[in-house]
Amino acid sequence: MSGTGVTVKKNVNFSEWYVEVVLKAELADYAPVKGCMVIRPDAYAVWEKIQEVVNQKIKSTGHRNAYFPMFIPEAFLKQEAAHFAGFTPEVAWITQGGDTPLEEKLAVRPTSETIMYDMFSKWIRSWRDLPLKINQWCNIVRWETKATKLFLRTREFLWQEGHTAHATAEDAEVEVIWALNMYKEVIENILAIPVLIGTKSESEKFAGALYTTALESIMPDGKALQMGTSHNLGQHFAKVFNVKYIGEDKKDHYVWQTSWGITTRLIGAMIMVHGDDKGLIMPPKVAPIQVVIIPIPFKGLEAEAIAAKTKEVAEILRAKSINTLLDDRSEYTPGWKFNQWELKGVPIRVELGPRDLKNGQVVMVRRDTGQKIPVKEANVVATVENLLQEIQDTMLAKAKALLDDKTTLVTNYDEFKHVIESKGGFIKAAWCGNPECEARIKVDTGATIRIRPFEKDTTKNICVYCNNEAKGGIVYFARSY
Amino acid sequence: MSGTGVTVKKNVNFSEWYVEVVLKAELADYAPVKGCMVIRPDAYAVWEKIQEVVNQKIKSTGHRNAYFPMFIPEAFLKQEAAHFAGFTPEVAWITQGGDTPLEEKLAVRPTSETIMYDMFSKWIRSWRDLPLKINQWCNIVRWETKATKLFLRTREFLWQEGHTAHATAEDAEVEVIWALNMYKEVIENILAIPVLIGTKSESEKFAGALYTTALESIMPDGKALQMGTSHNLGQHFAKVFNVKYIGEDKKDHYVWQTSWGITTRLIGAMIMVHGDDKGLIMPPKVAPIQVVIIPIPFKGLEAEAIAAKTKEVAEILRAKSINTLLDDRSEYTPGWKFNQWELKGVPIRVELGPRDLKNGQVVMVRRDTGQKIPVKEANVVATVENLLQEIQDTMLAKAKALLDDKTTLVTNYDEFKHVIESKGGFIKAAWCGNPECEARIKVDTGATIRIRPFEKDTTKNICVYCNNEAKGGIVYFARSY
Repeated sequence: MSGTGVTVKKNVNFSEWYVEVVLKAELADYAPVKGCMVIRPDAYAVWEKIQEVVNQKIKSTGHRNAYFPMFIPEAFLKQEAAHFAGFTPEVAWITQGGDTPLEEKLAVRPTSETIMYDMFSKWIRSWRDLPLKINQWCNIVRWETKATKLFLRTREFLWQEGHTAHATAEDAEVEVIWALNMYKEVIENILAIPVLIGTKSESEKFAGALYTTALESIMPDGKALQMGTSHNLGQHFAKVFNVKYIGEDKKDHYVWQTSWGITTRLIGAMIMVHGDDKGLIMPPKVAPIQVVIIPIPFKGLEAEAIAAKTKEVAEILRAKSINTLLDDRSEYTPGWKFNQWELKGVPIRVELGPRDLKNGQVVMVRRDTGQKIPVKEANVVATVENLLQEIQDTMLAKAKALLDDKTTLVTNYDEFKHVIESKGGFIKAAWCGNPECEARIKVDTGATIRIRPFEKDTTKNICVYCNNEAKGGIVYFARSY
Repeated sequence: MSGTGVTVKKNVNFSEWYVEVVLKAELADYAPVKGCMVIRPDAYAVWEKIQEVVNQKIKSTGHRNAYFPMFIPEAFLKQEAAHFAGFTPEVAWITQGGDTPLEEKLAVRPTSETIMYDMFSKWIRSWRDLPLKINQWCNIVRWETKATKLFLRTREFLWQEGHTAHATAEDAEVEVIWALNMYKEVIENILAIPVLIGTKSESEKFAGALYTTALESIMPDGKALQMGTSHNLGQHFAKVFNVKYIGEDKKDHYVWQTSWGITTRLIGAMIMVHGDDKGLIMPPKVAPIQVVIIPIPFKGLEAEAIAAKTKEVAEILRAKSINTLLDDRSEYTPGWKFNQWELKGVPIRVELGPRDLKNGQVVMVRRDTGQKIPVKEANVVATVENLLQEIQDTMLAKAKALLDDKTTLVTNYDEFKHVIESKGGFIKAAWCGNPECEARIKVDTGATIRIRPFEKDTTKNICVYCNNEAKGGIVYFARSY
């Protein structure tokens, strides 16, 4: 048993704790290729759940999945200048096919705007073809040079990228906000992580966008994590890739476009926000195993009756579509199993020993609070269903408390610097709107503007850095992943 | 309207017909990157349906999905010599990340045995960790130099690859056959394409396998298409990647492995087997739209009542989870819509005009037979449900008839050569088992051994080529894609 549990405390060395949880709970592993990871089944199951929920939401609103090549000609990337400048430094290049050098090197997609919109320009002819709402689930490559962080910073990751084309600026605007709110609902509802939403500052926007909206969360170490983005591309790409339609007015118009995405880094956020010193805690709505049942045949007493009863309990839970594992392996002790499934974050453990058998009950143990609850046999299903929801709610509430705790309103720059060093987190501060103040704050403190709320908060009207009028309103600064 | 329908007859120029159907039914498109395709939503939806069914089957048997890096170090590929020789000629190589040349070039996965088994060697410790049954859905790259054929031969395609490790040779054997039969069921049941199953000859087996089993179908042009493979890898890779476990006997053993896969080429097979001169015919079980409803407001008569009634019909069908589209666009005529949805292969068209309204009925038109069926309103749901199954069954039966028609038993080599030139298809012929005869037949006729049936058919006992004893039994030859 020794060596298999998490040995680092979350509040002592957060970053080592994270790596241990990811590796020991078998969520991911370092691949033999530098900078790359393997997503193991328990984490991939979380991604599949995210896919299921997002697919349901995008399909029911008329978006359709498709698949575009991952190879992008260099010339395509170059067409939108800001886009090229933003992505080229971290592009992986294919230069050889079989034994033959390629005439034009090919980028492995760092994002798919260019290759998709080249196709859009062929497919879109008239207003009847709009809106065009396409989504793609795929792998993405960005040749990171900073240290690898499983789920958070790897050279290859998985994502979903929505790409839409609309007849009007208003339609594109609506789509950008629709995607943002869709993500907020998914992340808060199934991953139990509260997010802030708003726009990015110019310096942080997507390379090639008109503007970028985003979702940001705070991690327990006080650093912000970008949870997803939704970009209004305006007509920038449409003009470069010639994506036009003939309107009802019989005239040519450029389309208005959006793109939006979330990635497997959400799994990293889930681990960081919810885990504890025993390991992972899976939000019930994404848990590949929601209930683990462990028979406890004390000194062999009643072993057969206990085996039969645990099987019965497993079956009635499965019949209710509750993901249930009966861990009846004889080669491990109950204590070993407790640790194993706590490490893996299973929301509810059900124990059944000789005394429980006699009393017609089981004992349920909540992973999030450790609370032990004796439950009469007849109430098992109802209690599990209630508990799963309660755990989900409790986890979200706890994460909300973390967000509140890690958010500080400051009124002057000394306070700003003090807070960023002492507790980190989101710092709410008024900003003049000048990119120079933003840049200087970044140099001084490492903090950047993570989010500018949609509703401008003008309760503080002096820029925290330059003391000029805070035309930008109160914004959220933080150091970030 | 002109120019949007299929202009080539299937039996006049099959290969041009295929390209027209794929492009005009908007299933795929040529990408701006040579050799690559875009999988458009209607075809991607078929892939998603295949994923759903396969996922259900693999998960319910204890397989789990995961994701491994698509980059494979050159040294890995080289470790299994036959594997390297088989795949290197068609590998795409990454040689540069950002502006920096890589120290060791990286292959984009042509298949994932090597990178997966390197991880398996870390994860598998004891007999308790077996069997390990992992599956991955991903993109695959093989740098084809032959002409691109949408879905059938592109440099990037999508697939699923199952990879398992077992304690015994017997367990691996069982897994190989399980996967093969699982594929047979999926392909016959949902794509309505009958397949032959059996083993590949040595010359056609997977590079690195002990032996390869496969599924083969015949296309209307008489060429065979490999529909999937399931490989017994024996201990070849285990020895090279050191995948060992400690047995209950406390000793070290190499694992026994399998791998198996199907790809997006199945969509190409579906198009080829079922399409007709009007375009695609979608098997109901994979059709993204199963029923299209077209209101026919003749000269504007009863337009509002017809609109209301068609909406009502659409709703009752959707309530039964039947994928239903109400095409009430006013900018197109009913005739244009008929052609459009026939081209796209929607299994059932429901028409509703003034007379139908008066008679309390709709008219259903089967895409596969063109049969028109007046149906009383009260019977709409039951009739659609029956028709969908009947169409599915009829399509499979028709494809089976094609397979039978395209299969010829020959007894001598002259007959063999005559049949391969005149009608193609599968040629059943006795074979001595000598790879030299196989090779010479290939040189002469272009035909290879597609399948050696599991049950040896010894009713002909003289090799069709050399007249020696037919130790290989009767096998299936064909020219192939």
